[in-house]
Order: sequence, then structure tokens, then C-alpha cells
Amino acid sequence: MSTPGDDPDTLDRTDPEGEIGARAEAFRNWGRWGEDDVLGTLNFIDPAKRVEAAALVSSGESISLAQRFDTNGPQKGWRRRTNPVHTMTDTGVDAERGNQGFPHGIGGADDVISMPLQCSTQWDGLGHIFDHGFAWNGRRAGDVVTSEGDLVTGIEHAASAIVSRGVLLDVGRFLEPETGELPDGYAITAADLDACIRAQGPSAEVRRGDIVLVRTGQYTRVHREGWGDYAGGAAPGLSLTTAGWLHRTEIAAIATDTWGFEVRPNEFDVPAFQPLHQVVIPNLGLTIGEMWNLDALADACATAGRWEFLLSAPPLPITGAVGSPINPVAIL
Amino acid sequence: MSTPGDDPDTLDRTDPEGEIGARAEAFRNWGRWGEDDVLGTLNFIDPAKRVEAAALVSSGESISLAQRFDTNGPQKGWRRRTNPVHTMTDTGVDAERGNQGFPHGIGGADDVISMPLQCSTQWDGLGHIFDHGFAWNGRRAGDVVTSEGDLVTGIEHAASAIVSRGVLLDVGRFLEPETGELPDGYAITAADLDACIRAQGPSAEVRRGDIVLVRTGQYTRVHREGWGDYAGGAAPGLSLTTAGWLHRTEIAAIATDTWGFEVRPNEFDVPAFQPLHQVVIPNLGLTIGEMWNLDALADACATAGRWEFLLSAPPLPITGAVGSPINPVAIL
Amino acid sequence: MSTPGDDPDTLDRTDPEGEIGARAEAFRNWGRWGEDDVLGTLNFIDPAKRVEAAALVSSGESISLAQRFDTNGPQKGWRRRTNPVHTMTDTGVDAERGNQGFPHGIGGADDVISMPLQCSTQWDGLGHIFDHGFAWNGRRAGDVVTSEGDLVTGIEHAASAIVSRGVLLDVGRFLEPETGELPDGYAITAADLDACIRAQGPSAEVRRGDIVLVRTGQYTRVHREGWGDYAGGAAPGLSLTTAGWLHRTEIAAIATDTWGFEVRPNEFDVPAFQPLHQVVIPNLGLTIGEMWNLDALADACATAGRWEFLLSAPPLPITGAVGSPINPVAIL
Amino acid sequence: MSTPGDDPDTLDRTDPEGEIGARAEAFRNWGRWGEDDVLGTLNFIDPAKRVEAAALVSSGESISLAQRFDTNGPQKGWRRRTNPVHTMTDTGVDAERGNQGFPHGIGGADDVISMPLQCSTQWDGLGHIFDHGFAWNGRRAGDVVTSEGDLVTGIEHAASAIVSRGVLLDVGRFLEPETGELPDGYAITAADLDACIRAQGPSAEVRRGDIVLVRTGQYTRVHREGWGDYAGGAAPGLSLTTAGWLHRTEIAAIATDTWGFEVRPNEFDVPAFQPLHQVVIPNLGLTIGEMWNLDALADACATAGRWEFLLSAPPLPITGAVGSPINPVAIL
Repeated sequence: MSTPGDDPDTLDRTDPEGEIGARAEAFRNWGRWGEDDVLGTLNFIDPAKRVEAAALVSSGESISLAQRFDTNGPQKGWRRRTNPVHTMTDTGVDAERGNQGFPHGIGGADDVISMPLQCSTQWDGLGHIFDHGFAWNGRRAGDVVTSEGDLVTGIEHAASAIVSRGVLLDVGRFLEPETGELPDGYAITAADLDACIRAQGPSAEVRRGDIVLVRTGQYTRVHREGWGDYAGGAAPGLSLTTAGWLHRTEIAAIATDTWGFEVRPNEFDVPAFQPLHQVVIPNLGLTIGEMWNLDALADACATAGRWEFLLSAPPLPITGAVGSPINPVAIL
Repeated sequence: MSTPGDDPDTLDRTDPEGEIGARAEAFRNWGRWGEDDVLGTLNFIDPAKRVEAAALVSSGESISLAQRFDTNGPQKGWRRRTNPVHTMTDTGVDAERGNQGFPHGIGGADDVISMPLQCSTQWDGLGHIFDHGFAWNGRRAGDVVTSEGDLVTGIEHAASAIVSRGVLLDVGRFLEPETGELPDGYAITAADLDACIRAQGPSAEVRRGDIVLVRTGQYTRVHREGWGDYAGGAAPGLSLTTAGWLHRTEIAAIATDTWGFEVRPNEFDVPAFQPLHQVVIPNLGLTIGEMWNLDALADACATAGRWEFLLSAPPLPITGAVGSPINPVAIL
Repeated sequence: MSTPGDDPDTLDRTDPEGEIGARAEAFRNWGRWGEDDVLGTLNFIDPAKRVEAAALVSSGESISLAQRFDTNGPQKGWRRRTNPVHTMTDTGVDAERGNQGFPHGIGGADDVISMPLQCSTQWDGLGHIFDHGFAWNGRRAGDVVTSEGDLVTGIEHAASAIVSRGVLLDVGRFLEPETGELPDGYAITAADLDACIRAQGPSAEVRRGDIVLVRTGQYTRVHREGWGDYAGGAAPGLSLTTAGWLHRTEIAAIATDTWGFEVRPNEFDVPAFQPLHQVVIPNLGLTIGEMWNLDALADACATAGRWEFLLSAPPLPITGAVGSPINPVAIL
Repeated sequence: MSTPGDDPDTLDRTDPEGEIGARAEAFRNWGRWGEDDVLGTLNFIDPAKRVEAAALVSSGESISLAQRFDTNGPQKGWRRRTNPVHTMTDTGVDAERGNQGFPHGIGGADDVISMPLQCSTQWDGLGHIFDHGFAWNGRRAGDVVTSEGDLVTGIEHAASAIVSRGVLLDVGRFLEPETGELPDGYAITAADLDACIRAQGPSAEVRRGDIVLVRTGQYTRVHREGWGDYAGGAAPGLSLTTAGWLHRTEIAAIATDTWGFEVRPNEFDVPAFQPLHQVVIPNLGLTIGEMWNLDALADACATAGRWEFLLSAPPLPITGAVGSPINPVAIL
């Protein structure tokens, strides 16, 4: 079998299993960092990489790349993915009325939250997706993630790892200079990514250990027009054929401003579901970010003409979690 | 009324309301950043500060300062502060057994969490504490935090703010060089902080806009011996008399490795509850971190002989929250 | 002021506050069962009433009157009223795979739920609604229900109370014999209720201490056609002008098959919200049931030509709750 | 293999798997109510049984048999079994202060809950326990209960079923007349049950379709002295050797005032866990109630000298649940 190429025209759109399988086999990183590895491509980030990243800070501007965690979010309950429910256990109204029972005039407010870990801006952990019953590094899915959580590759293992050089590829702005927004269903190719890098210039060069942020503009659109089917509907995103690009660039992680990272509907004429996830999470060991808000960063980068920055996006170390809500911060 | 001093011996231990009130009045920052301010002392962090902070990165080592978010955490249910409950909505066991209904061999795991926002490593937001019915910047507590959440100073406003120079003051190691652990009930004074800074050397100098991390060693102890009464029991921590130090240093935020930041039991012979919170959150507008894990950082700093670093600790932008779970990262 | 009448034509549709106030004053039961009362009209149920109710059992058929508690329920998040989220902490898939760590071949499944107490079939407790800052029996709303819950009239106090004679008034079938479904927006009047009773015959007579169930047929419709705006949209229901009927019949409780018990939109030309709730919960002390499934019961009653039965509908004794999920059972 | 007997002295305390297996085989009801059955022994309750039960009502007294659902409950987090967390989304304090935005003086309070379905008074559903990977009626455990819940025998199927004759066996009072409380670790035998029935007289006779309530007195003790290890610690309860009694009496369901229904520690000298559950839930199809509060009922029955009553204990129809919180009511 030859190595699968980057050209979407060569995809057999009637054979998702074959197309996925060819890429899984060609780009599999199992064993690359030892039998016990729990980090996958995050291993590409080393201390020298972080020194390189910190050196990029020039203006000192700090930009949150998170969407809100809000009851009025995009989720519609698919597979119990609801919006967060945030409730108060104590309030200022109570404090002011004097019903809290505390001495010397102190009052307090406290709160709780119930939420899917992937309800808003998040990382997909390595235990989030399986390929034919196998998880990252070739482990049996059922040995890794049980009802007790991810017993092996829980997101807590990445608590210190995800600080690196970030590179924004504003594909929306590059391909659609007038609106800055790709249409739903647009499949971003490896050629698109490379062309966007060339257009943005040297600061957009993608290197080993980078965290690549791909802005499609879809979030800009739903932020303006209402959520609609943002959670699970049609969306621009990466083509399955970018699997090779994601592998050979040796990036540490990638994130987009969409619900599902890859193009939707998926690129097949038969039922298919998130084929690129199936290739890159369990086989490459790639950490994927979704539902990021890249708009303020895109404006700042365009203004500065610079597309690289220090990116700090550590997950919450929830024991055994297969994903994590995050507030990534770019420091320019 | 003269400005309250730093000497704990001058505290009237029968009059918490008076001692709190004197400090609230003396150190109040209301209006300092305008009537509409929602950030308090986080305003001390400006872009130049972040440039200064990023320049501190030398080894590129990244250290998570979070404790785990875990069912087996320290919480005992006080005021409904429970440990997080993390459950799976899909698992690898299900994927392997083939019951998920997905095509072409893809399987998935997903999860949800229910937790108090202050169950583990966290920031106290500005809406967390009130003084005689008033919140930060002089607003009525009942105008700010209702059952719908913090309508004014919700933690989402700080989403981009909390990246700065971090300074670790390892008071535990300084005062108890053999064990590195202060005894429960030890009240850290302004003099202790200043002496610790002098002992640690120039890299420990505390400056405007810094985020100061105070290690007491209590977490080291409970991590070794079991949680015990970590959540709400006796603990080392800052004396009420450090309020002036916290004000005049113009730090942006402060965090400790304890449940409650300030010394417990509190320093009064009559009922009292978290008096330093009452002074610094609603009056100074100071953001406070609690339940941080400073042990790995302390070891790294001691080894390097350097106590300053880039600190990235953005809150999750949960709309209307009065606190946030966080995974702070120090980059050395 | 004369006692407000039953005729909707006399309503001043520009003055909800006046119309509500007149009924609140005329029909207020404050003090009727003493200053410390926590049950309101549930006091009308005495042991003799339960003996009378039990004697109604003839066929022994038992019919659940609950809708499902289901992720795919009607809630849309209004005021954080979501559908329940039910997740497993252990499963049969895990047990079968042998990963639970139990001895001698035992395996187990366990589950948790997060839900608003009013997400599906429920009772409104006495602390659910206030009238100008006053709760049931004339207490200050803020003395009764704080962030800690209902400190006075929590639903746990009714744990043993709600077993009585039930009477089904199938107003849908009576007024719309062909479809059995009232149109959305139809305001059921006292005259309608009385006419329905006469049409159904002696077994439908309403007496002191009864629990009256009013079927509108709306649930039948949404069960067939999809939830649509069942939660909060237009619906048939009781007219504000039935307040007198609800008072003089001395019923213990009432329930409907709709989201909101009373007609929606409400009967005013200016902004109004659930005016009948405002009259009957805090003023009469009436317990209201909503979102019941009365369809199987209606069929059984129509077949038998008997509209009375033993009704058991105890709330879950959740400390301090202002409502409760329930599974009411009619025993015929 | 001979049918296992009722005598605990014949138990081989080194062989739980053998002792369980013998009883599972001897008393298995698989197929008894057809291949599609989802109710197990609840099938023993028929309409005639409910007529018989309703005829028992004489005084009309109604007694809740539920413990509170309360944050300060017995749970300690074992296998994520926590106490319920009940929080308010609107309160009377807010209503009184006028911050809810409703017209004409109406105010409201609402609430949500997060809880394990087995945190307090509950039924164990048929999907709660498996025997060597098999669920009730011989189904594969993994075909029945996945991460999506119990797809076959979910508790919603029993929504109308659980109303029958209840019989209280106050074994605590019978065996320990002075205290009314069995010591922790006491194994109640079939002989004990029969002797208790004889002592209580004809009204305590146990018949097909009954719901039997066994009071040990442990709840009385922990209610007085504090929860201690009520959740999972040592307790009085049924001996494994009562399996035959539970089978031949053809009861519909059974409940106790303890956490775990059967005696704890279990009756083996080697590691064992809830062996009677393993026999009776998946093999007999018996529905088990736990953590009931039988004290008020026991007093009423002792006073009346009558131990039978109408019992209404329908579960909440939570789709796919393997258990349900309940408020059972006895009507005397």
C-alpha cells in the first residue's frame, strides 16, 4: 500500500473504512515514545521549544481564546452534550439580607457547575476516540477507558505539557479575504494550509512541537447570527486528507474555531463520522482542540503581521477525564 | 484613625469587626480604576509586565500548580462544597463491545462533571466575598451576585488578564528549613514575607503586578498524611495584619497551598471567619488563589536559586461565576 | 371590594395586579391552620378522607401518571430548566468485561442524575411562588427561601400527606369530544369545570380534600407531534377566574397535563406571568401539579364510567426543596 | 446438587462462589414470565392483589417510609455514591429584593439536584446487579446496561407496578425486645423471619405478591447516634441462606432500613461482596429496597397490633435507570 496522499480527489468516497485504515497505518505513532507513553505528540514540546515560544512575546498583549461557558451555549443534548448549568449556593442577595450566619459583617457567594467536559472550548484527550477498539499507543479501548474514566491516558497527565509556540493559520481570512469566513462544508486541504502559511509569511512557518490554530471563521458567523447547528451541523474544517500533513509537520496539537475540527458533512457518500479523529487521536496521538474563539487573536495577528506567539493552554487535571474545558491564552 | 500596622501584637483579639474595619478603610481601592471596574488589582498587570514576565523564561521547564480534580479530594460537604463527581457518558469498554452505533470502526468516550467551582485549585473571584453587604468597588452585594450569578464582576471578565510575573515565597522552607512545613495555626506576618524575600534573594523581590505564591508546606503534609481537615480546619496562612503589605506591594494576585489562604483558626478570641478575605477581596479588589500545589515549583526554584517565573493562570470564563477551577502553569 | 367572580368577561385585561390582588385578598387562607402551618390546603386531607379514597379501589388497576424523566424531554433551558442528565457510574458492559474488581462473579451498575426538580412530572411546593415578597401564610419570602433552600415550607414536610381521593376532570374530552384536546390558549373556566363534573356524573363530584386532575389533552398532542413549545409556550389551562372555585371547593391539590397549569398566554393585554400561581400558591396555600400524563387514566375512567380513584403522589423528601419530581399513581 | 437449605450452619464459608451458584441455580426464575420480561417478581402483583391491599386501609393514617434526601446524608463517596447536592436557581430573597424581572409582584423559587439514584431511600432495579456477566432473565449484562443506561429493564418499566400489600416484619423488636435494634453483623435467617411472623400474628402472614419490609433497627441507631459507617459498614441484614425463603414465598419485593439489605460483613471467611444480591436480583428477578425509614411505621403497627397495610412505592420513571429514589407510603 502506498502512503495516502494529500489530494482529496484521490479519496474513494465510498470507502471510509479503507481510507481511514490506510492513513491510520501510514501515520501511526504507536511505540514512538515508548510503551508507557500517555502524551502522544505533546512529547514534541520540549523545554527548548518553550524557551523559543517565550521569546516570541513582544507586545505583552494577552488574549483569551475561550468561548464562554454559558447556559446559552450551542449544545443541544446530542449524546448528553448539554450546555453548562451554573448555580449559586450562596449569593450577595443573601449576604446583604444577613441570612448567612457569618460574624463581623463578612458575606460570601459560592457556586457549582454541572457540565460535559466538551461543552465549550476544550481539548480532546487521547482517550476520547478509538479505532476499531484500540486506543492511543495500541492499547485495548476497554483497558483504557471504563465507567471509572480513563485509567491510563487521563487528561491529568498533560497538566504541565501544553505550553508551546502557537501559530495561527487564518484560513478563513486567506481563502475568503472579503468575509474572512469559510462556507460550511468546506474541506481545508494540506495545500490550503501550506498556501496560507506562505501567504502569511515566515512567522507562520509550522515547526515541530507547535500548537497550530486554524481559524475557519465559522465561530465569527454563529457568534453574529446565532448558534444554529454549530454543535454537530455542517461546518468548514480539515479534510481527512490532511492526516499526512498533521503527521509530517510533527506538530504537538491543533485546534479550530469549530465544534468538530474536521469538515462536516464528512467527505464520504456513505455514512461516516469524524474519520480524521479516528486517524489522528488513537493513531497519531494528536491532541485536538475544538470550539476555540480565535477572532480577537486573528485581528491582533493581522494588525501585527505576525502569526506566532506563546500559547498556554493547560487542561484541568480532572482524574481520568478524556477531555478538558480550557481557557487557552495567547501572549503576543 | 491611624493606619493599621503590620504587627500582630497590636491586634485587639476581642474586636474582629474593628480590626477588619480599620484595614478595610485604610486599604480600600474603590474607584481607583473607575466606577465600572471589574478587575481590581488585576489592573496592575499591563502588557509591559507580561513582557517582563516572559523574559524570565530560561530553562523552558513548565510546571503545573494544580492539585487533582478528584472524587477523593479534601472536601467534606461544608456549605455544599463537595468533591467533583466525574462520570462517563461513553467509554472504551462500550466502544470495544461495539454498542455505540458509529460507522467504520470509530468509537468514542465522553464525560461530564459536577463540581463546586472551589472544590480544588481555584481563584476566588471578586464576587466571592462581601463586607457588610458591599462588594468590590462599593457596589451593593445584592446588585452584584444574585441567584443568577455574578451579574457585574463575573470571573469571565478576567479571562485574558491573569498572565504575569510569578514569585514564589517559600515561607515553609524559609521558616522551617528542616521540614519545609509551617505548623497549622501559624500566622505568616508581613515581616515573615519580607524576611523570606531577603533570604531568597533578588529574584524574589515583589513588585507591582506580580502574582505572589506563598508556600506554607501544609499541602505537602496532607499529601503525605491524608487530607484530614485540610478543607476548613487549622492551617498556616497569612495574618490579618498582612493586609497593609498586600496593599502597598500593589501585587495583582496571591495564592497559597492551603484551603483558605489566611491562618486558621483566625486570630481572634471571639467568633471570626476569614477576616483577611473580608478586607482584601471586596475592599482591595485582590484576586486570591487557594489549594494550589506549589511543591514541584518549590523544588525547581530551590534548585535553580531563582524564585521568579512566567505564570499563566487564566480562569475558565464561566458566565457569572464567583470563582474558577484552574490549572496554573509556571514556566521557568 | 366585592368578591371577584368566576366570569372571565369581567376581568380587566389591562390590570393584572388589580385582578390578582382582589383574588389574593378574597381567597387568602393565611392563618387558617395556625401560624406555623407548612401544608396549606393539604390539611384538607385527613385520615377519614384516605379511608374514603381507599374504598374507591375496585378493579385494582394501577396507573402511573408520570411522564418520563428523560434527556429528550421538553425543557429548553428557560431559567436553567434543562432536561435531566442521567449518567452511569458502572455498567453491565464493564461487569461483563470483568473490570469492576468484585469477587465471585458479582457485577453491578449504578447511576447518577442531575435535574431541575421541575423538569418533568412534579409538584410545586409552597415555597415556589411569592406574592409581592410574601410566601405562604404571610411569611416574608426572604425568610422562607434562601440560597440554602426553603427553610420553612420545604417539600419534605409533605412527605406523608399526599394520598387522597383523586378525581379526573377530562375537560379536553368534555369540551372537544372528537379530539379530546383543547386548543392552546383555551382558558378553562369555573363554569367549564362544573359542567364537566355534571357531564361525567356523580363519581366526578369534587369534595373537600380531593386532588383534582384536569386533563386538557395538550400532552396527548405533544406526545404525538413533538414537544414544540410545551415548556412555556401557549397552552390550554385554568383561567385566573377559577381562583374562587379552587378556594370554595376546598380541594387539597390540583394537577394538569400541561407545563404551567394555567392558560397561556395569560389573560391580559399587558405583560403578565402566571397570575393564577400568584393567587393560589402563596395565598391559598394550594399545591399544584404540572406535566402529568393523564392519558391512560382518562381512557380507563372513560371505559369504566367512573372518575374517582385512590391517588398516591408523595413528593421526594428533598430537604428544603420548593418542588419535587414525582410518579403519581392512581389505583382504580 | 440438592436444593440449598435455610440453615446458615451449612454454609461453606470458604466458598462464596459455590454457595451463590447453588442458590442461583436452585431459585432462578429466568423465563418464568416469558423471554421479554422486564419486571421479575413484580409480576406477582396483580389487580386482585391491589384490591386486597386497598381493603386493608382502616385508620387512614399515611406514613412516609423515606429518609431525607439531604446533603448531610450517610454517603461517603464510595464508588461515587455521594449525598445529594440541592441548589437554588431562584430564591425568595431574590424575589423580595425585586431582581427577578417578573411583572405584577409575582416572584419565584426554583431548584436543581445532583444525586446518585441510590443516595437515599431507593429501589434497586433489575439492571443493578449481574451474576457472572448475566442480568435478569438470562440476558448478557453488556446487552442490557451500557453507558447509555439500562436499555432493557430500566426502572421506568415498573412505573405502575409497585402498589401492593405491605407487611412489616419488625425483626429488631422481635429479637431484641428491649432495644428494638439488632446488632451490626447479625444475619437474619429464614427461621428468624418465620418466627417473627408467628410472633406478630396472622396480620403478618407473608403471601404471594407482598412487599415485605424488614426492620432491623439499625436506622434507629444511626439516626440517634450519627451516620458512622451506615453506608457500607457493618450492619444487620438478611443471611444469604434466606434466598430460598425469598423464592418460595413468592413475594414481589423486599426492603430494609439498612444500606445494603443483607448482613454485613458478609458471611464468608474469604473476600465476598453482597452475595445475596447476586442471587436474588439477576436470578430471582427480585426488586430490593434499601435505606428505608421504618420507625414510624413500626410504632404504628405495634400500637395497632396489625402489621399489614397498603403500600405505594412507585419509582421515578427515569429512562434507563438501574435504581430510583423513592418516597414509599404506607396507608394503614
